[in-house]
Amino acid sequence: MRQFPGLFITFEGIEGTGKSTHAKRLFAYLEEKEYRVLFTAEPGGTDVGDQIRSILLHPQTGEVDPVTELFLFEASRREHVLQVIQPALQTGRIVLCVRFCDSTIAYQGYGRGLSVEMIQYLNRLATNGLAPDLTLLLDIDPEEGLRRSFHHTSPQELRFEEEFIKKKDILDSIRKGFFKIAKEEPNRFQMISTVESKDVVFEKIKNCVLAAIQDKKRRNEL
Amino acid sequence: MRQFPGLFITFEGIEGTGKSTHAKRLFAYLEEKEYRVLFTAEPGGTDVGDQIRSILLHPQTGEVDPVTELFLFEASRREHVLQVIQPALQTGRIVLCVRFCDSTIAYQGYGRGLSVEMIQYLNRLATNGLAPDLTLLLDIDPEEGLRRSFHHTSPQELRFEEEFIKKKDILDSIRKGFFKIAKEEPNRFQMISTVESKDVVFEKIKNCVLAAIQDKKRRNEL
Repeated sequence: MRQFPGLFITFEGIEGTGKSTHAKRLFAYLEEKEYRVLFTAEPGGTDVGDQIRSILLHPQTGEVDPVTELFLFEASRREHVLQVIQPALQTGRIVLCVRFCDSTIAYQGYGRGLSVEMIQYLNRLATNGLAPDLTLLLDIDPEEGLRRSFHHTSPQELRFEEEFIKKKDILDSIRKGFFKIAKEEPNRFQMISTVESKDVVFEKIKNCVLAAIQDKKRRNEL
Repeated sequence: MRQFPGLFITFEGIEGTGKSTHAKRLFAYLEEKEYRVLFTAEPGGTDVGDQIRSILLHPQTGEVDPVTELFLFEASRREHVLQVIQPALQTGRIVLCVRFCDSTIAYQGYGRGLSVEMIQYLNRLATNGLAPDLTLLLDIDPEEGLRRSFHHTSPQELRFEEEFIKKKDILDSIRKGFFKIAKEEPNRFQMISTVESKDVVFEKIKNCVLAAIQDKKRRNEL
């Protein structure tokens, strides 16, 4: 695993947990504190990645084989790591990224039933082994999450939501998948329920992140 | 490796060997003989595959990391196998396919320097282990091939040609890669030089294919 300076924080969780909203608020908060921060999200974030994103998330794409979907997510991730995340970390930035490798294990592995070992292999290929310093796993009841998500997602990007509305069980499996992944790496993960008010949730996120920043500073890595 | 009825024939080789031209002529010839034939080509051949093809081959895409490129080719291949090739073989058709797994090993492996074993693993993932019955490896001197290719390729699909014009060595490595792959599977491969006239080359191709058809028929698989 390669070590970079900077601090790499990912936001994970099922639909409707407020990952993007909280990550953007955190971005603004950290910028105000004069940290050098980057906000980004998967899939997408690069020219090639955005083209892939539109294939993956557009409802018109319809049903796609899980292995095809996996290859596309990894292609997008590869460009994202090489062109965006790695360069930002190398210059000492704090990178806030919505969705990363854990989403692929949860959705394509625990959700779609592909081999988790195989996905881990492709994740390593795509990232050269780059792993987040801190992962905030935001949690919510799947039904409530879908309800919230439909209100916040652009109509061009509702393919997954439309599928999950029809097959609610799959979102349960994905959620439990995230729990399993988090359990295996307790040092990297912080699980935060989003049942409480946005401000209370954000306060928890902020505290986790400030602790991670202090930790990095203590080790002279930020 | 899964066995299907039908006959799966791939056309491989570097730019400008006339793969598509000969495959299309063979398609017409076999149809006239009342065989049920399908002509197809990679990357592309499906809705998702065609979108990926336009990312991969458009010169505007510019330089793409070799691993990204690999994931995109495999995503396109996966859809192509599941939606086009496998169904056609299952109904006993002769499938003529321009480029398949060997191209990925030659270009991304021997050309771009990625691990051949890793590519073989992804090829198996994409194809469920489906392999051609016969592969026609058309050969030409790289400089002559590029010259021919520029005249026949649409301006929207010249990314690889534009790269190879600048780095001629890479096309030599790819050509030698094809030789190596063919050497490892002498029963599957037929190598055909395209130095002679189109008609002479086509005659050779036709004879190889008719022999493969007879062989399949003898085994009651066609």
